[in-house]
Amino acid sequence: MSSRYARPLAILIEELAKLPGIGPKTAQRLALYILNISREEAGILAQSITNAKDKIKRCQICYNLTDQNICEICQDQARQRDIICVVETVRELMALEKTGGYKGLYHVLQGAISPLDGIDPDHLTIEQLISRLKTEDIKEVILATNPNIEGEVTASYIAKLIRPLNIKITRIAYGVPIGGDLEFADEVTLTQSLLGRQIFKNDK
Amino acid sequence: MSSRYARPLAILIEELAKLPGIGPKTAQRLALYILNISREEAGILAQSITNAKDKIKRCQICYNLTDQNICEICQDQARQRDIICVVETVRELMALEKTGGYKGLYHVLQGAISPLDGIDPDHLTIEQLISRLKTEDIKEVILATNPNIEGEVTASYIAKLIRPLNIKITRIAYGVPIGGDLEFADEVTLTQSLLGRQIFKNDK
Repeated sequence: MSSRYARPLAILIEELAKLPGIGPKTAQRLALYILNISREEAGILAQSITNAKDKIKRCQICYNLTDQNICEICQDQARQRDIICVVETVRELMALEKTGGYKGLYHVLQGAISPLDGIDPDHLTIEQLISRLKTEDIKEVILATNPNIEGEVTASYIAKLIRPLNIKITRIAYGVPIGGDLEFADEVTLTQSLLGRQIFKNDK
Repeated sequence: MSSRYARPLAILIEELAKLPGIGPKTAQRLALYILNISREEAGILAQSITNAKDKIKRCQICYNLTDQNICEICQDQARQRDIICVVETVRELMALEKTGGYKGLYHVLQGAISPLDGIDPDHLTIEQLISRLKTEDIKEVILATNPNIEGEVTASYIAKLIRPLNIKITRIAYGVPIGGDLEFADEVTLTQSLLGRQIFKNDK
């Protein structure tokens, strides 16, 4: 009941509560925090929102987020340019980048095929991926869509399209998460991690 | 490591991560959400921050947050005007208002006495409270500072100053869990602790 607050405060709380995972109580806490910081700091926060919104767009090649026409990863000549990792969204791209273990290129699908949610293949950037594969000199495509139904369907769909191009197609490994407990892994994951077992090397 | 993000996105994530309780992962999630909403919605969010910051100030009487000189509670002639509930911050005022069980006025101290944090009585609005008590026709002061050390010290300190004015001094009942924060108490408990308030005795 926002009537208890002065109107500009009520509006701020309401707007903050629209953010995902921010309930009314957290929104109130954040709003009071914002009222407590300096006008300059609050201005910087507000500015960062409009500025990001104005400047950030999709990379014309891989659909990563960027403030240029071509994102830094696509521009980076030091990266391995004959391998593309296909992900659903920028969140997964960021997660993979954080590992520091991948030095190739990306392609962001902007979602996964999900007929129930009305997301067909042509809502995604699959066509753009295929045309990249035809023009760039790509030796391997890693399908890193999520290990759930939509991700699997999307991976299968894309694999079928790539197959005629004679490019190596791989899928990220399924298995038990490092640091986790076998006991708590679900049966499907355990089965997959058994099927995908690798020769054990002691000399690591 | 913000260098993985385009600069405007990195700045947005950084700014969001400054908010209390927002870690880097949540900040990233919020930033990507903001990039996904319409430019208009993002504009409204940014605007609500600067607008609240520009418009909201302290009530000249009770130090509640308001966009006028005098807050709505102080202006409300339907409220009981001979009783003042003294709280540490606006958060507690809001929590008490939510109960709907209190119809008197407030006084927001803007903190609690805490020598360790360098907060002396004159950092708070205690002097202003005393001068209210001398000019307004107040019959009772409810001390609703938090039930922790700082709150108790502050209540004692204020009670000592009010004593000569011959005004009834009460303390919210300890229905609220000791060591907790008023802000997080449920409404029924808060209402009960208001109803069960006791005459304040310094000589405990």
